[in-house]
Amino acid sequence: MKFLAICGSLRKNSTNLGMLRFAQANAPEGVSIEIADLTEIPFYNADITEKPASVVKLLAQLSEADALILGCTEYNYSIAPALKNALDWASREPENNLLSGKPAALMGSGGGMGTSRSQYHMRQVCVFLNMHPLNKPEVFANAFANTFDDQGGLIDSKIQANILSQLDALQNWTAQLQK
Amino acid sequence: MKFLAICGSLRKNSTNLGMLRFAQANAPEGVSIEIADLTEIPFYNADITEKPASVVKLLAQLSEADALILGCTEYNYSIAPALKNALDWASREPENNLLSGKPAALMGSGGGMGTSRSQYHMRQVCVFLNMHPLNKPEVFANAFANTFDDQGGLIDSKIQANILSQLDALQNWTAQLQK
Amino acid sequence: MKFLAICGSLRKNSTNLGMLRFAQANAPEGVSIEIADLTEIPFYNADITEKPASVVKLLAQLSEADALILGCTEYNYSIAPALKNALDWASREPENNLLSGKPAALMGSGGGMGTSRSQYHMRQVCVFLNMHPLNKPEVFANAFANTFDDQGGLIDSKIQANILSQLDALQNWTAQLQK
Amino acid sequence: MKFLAICGSLRKNSTNLGMLRFAQANAPEGVSIEIADLTEIPFYNADITEKPASVVKLLAQLSEADALILGCTEYNYSIAPALKNALDWASREPENNLLSGKPAALMGSGGGMGTSRSQYHMRQVCVFLNMHPLNKPEVFANAFANTFDDQGGLIDSKIQANILSQLDALQNWTAQLQK
Repeated sequence: MKFLAICGSLRKNSTNLGMLRFAQANAPEGVSIEIADLTEIPFYNADITEKPASVVKLLAQLSEADALILGCTEYNYSIAPALKNALDWASREPENNLLSGKPAALMGSGGGMGTSRSQYHMRQVCVFLNMHPLNKPEVFANAFANTFDDQGGLIDSKIQANILSQLDALQNWTAQLQK
Repeated sequence: MKFLAICGSLRKNSTNLGMLRFAQANAPEGVSIEIADLTEIPFYNADITEKPASVVKLLAQLSEADALILGCTEYNYSIAPALKNALDWASREPENNLLSGKPAALMGSGGGMGTSRSQYHMRQVCVFLNMHPLNKPEVFANAFANTFDDQGGLIDSKIQANILSQLDALQNWTAQLQK
Repeated sequence: MKFLAICGSLRKNSTNLGMLRFAQANAPEGVSIEIADLTEIPFYNADITEKPASVVKLLAQLSEADALILGCTEYNYSIAPALKNALDWASREPENNLLSGKPAALMGSGGGMGTSRSQYHMRQVCVFLNMHPLNKPEVFANAFANTFDDQGGLIDSKIQANILSQLDALQNWTAQLQK
Repeated sequence: MKFLAICGSLRKNSTNLGMLRFAQANAPEGVSIEIADLTEIPFYNADITEKPASVVKLLAQLSEADALILGCTEYNYSIAPALKNALDWASREPENNLLSGKPAALMGSGGGMGTSRSQYHMRQVCVFLNMHPLNKPEVFANAFANTFDDQGGLIDSKIQANILSQLDALQNWTAQLQK
């Protein structure tokens, strides 16, 4: 099974990216996790008639993915634009909505609410895209000292266990939806 | 009084931009409306230490604005990234949250729900930014034939009247909050 | 397959109830639809130690249901209390969350937005309850003349077809989740 | 100035009620706070043509209140029905929307997110009702040991200070909107 992880934050030492890296390094048996690179993806604009190479690559990765892991960085109580924009590009494939029917897991690291506000907005986005986000377990990390190291690496064992449990649930949910 | 209008859609013939152009051309007496240019604004990224000229210009415009008009283009049941990103840049000014206390009006053109889903997400963003969006009148346009012309120009007289009424309300609301 | 329909409005000629009645009378082959009676259900209150008979009956119906149909009456841009309260009672069964894993379909009749605001709030409720609401088709009716008769009966053929299509989708979704 | 406090939870030892009691006992100079009694209020139903005495009393209290304090008890990731229902009754006064223009403060006690999910739904309700909820400070309490005593009394000094600061802000916001 292939999971594609997408991070809302573009900065190098992002704690949200750190969570996705932990997931990648600890994928369940039978699962491989790739992390998408959004650094070159432009804002979606219907006037752009030829897709940039970065978008073409993202769409190919999405097309091959059995499920998505969304690193739901929260800015100002809603979704980080880079993540939303990646999904917007994918949704505009007229012949083939690449995201329809895909299972997804949501996680994130932020202030006191652990990106929950961003995640509930993302769940509404999934309705239109016909994606199937996991209900449980939810993963909400606080980006405080002792949770992440200086490079955004996840060091909190409780959140680590939470992510492992979510990855198992995503594997099971994906298998159920593929029956 | 100065209002700054910001549009979620980047395309040239956007109907959301058409609504803002109508507002600009029909500003109430005593009000001037400028439309921000987002085409060169990059994704916010904390690793960018020097602000691009396009961002510097936007921040100056926001700083001078008495109120904002947000063209809440909806993609996939939530906010268009270009608009959210413009506000994200403005919110990260450490010395001075440029948006705090600003009144705002929300309008948009979209499918059957007239961008209402995007507008309610935007209202949650305004809580964190400490902005004061108008409650009423709400402006929801359907981007259907007979509402807009081929260049995105607003031609529906009912929506035009709705916008004029919203601009009056924004002028009054701004005056009340500046007392 | 058994579907249990629950209506947010308590009034006799409710258009939301009219939609559920239409669904009941036009259930797909192999499906029977019951409509819950909420008129005697009190507000949930943890101090009530003995469940009223009306609640006991509702819980038994929920327990037997393969899927739910939620008539998402909208009051003041959110969920009608009677519907939310019915789900709140069901969620407090300590030995056995009666709603966990249940598929659901959402429909409703209201003002210009067809209860969409209520339905997106309901979808967030489903996350906690671990329910699986259908993504598509969504059913949004406007409670205007020519859509419903004086007794709340649904007479608009387009909305009728929309509901039939949703019932088929719910039957398929339920079968998939029961595999 | 008169503030009316309304609590979503009906149980005697509710921690949400405990927060409102703390507010009442510590009202700013020049402010008196009353707590509404919702125990006898029935579900709103348009078929009820004569208002019960409990509703008549609530409407009179709302009519006299300069501002509201909403104790946003959260059940299943959304608003407790008793609170929503109180506002629904008030909104149906045809001659005079009793809530239009009223300032409000939101607070609540719940699980790990401190009723934030309920509060953001409540803010959407306020848009339709044309109420003006405070943006800041938000008050989110966790209903854990050391925060409340056995009778729901608020004993955490940090949350107490947070509420005092919110009451001051509500007094100022109300004064500004009454200018």
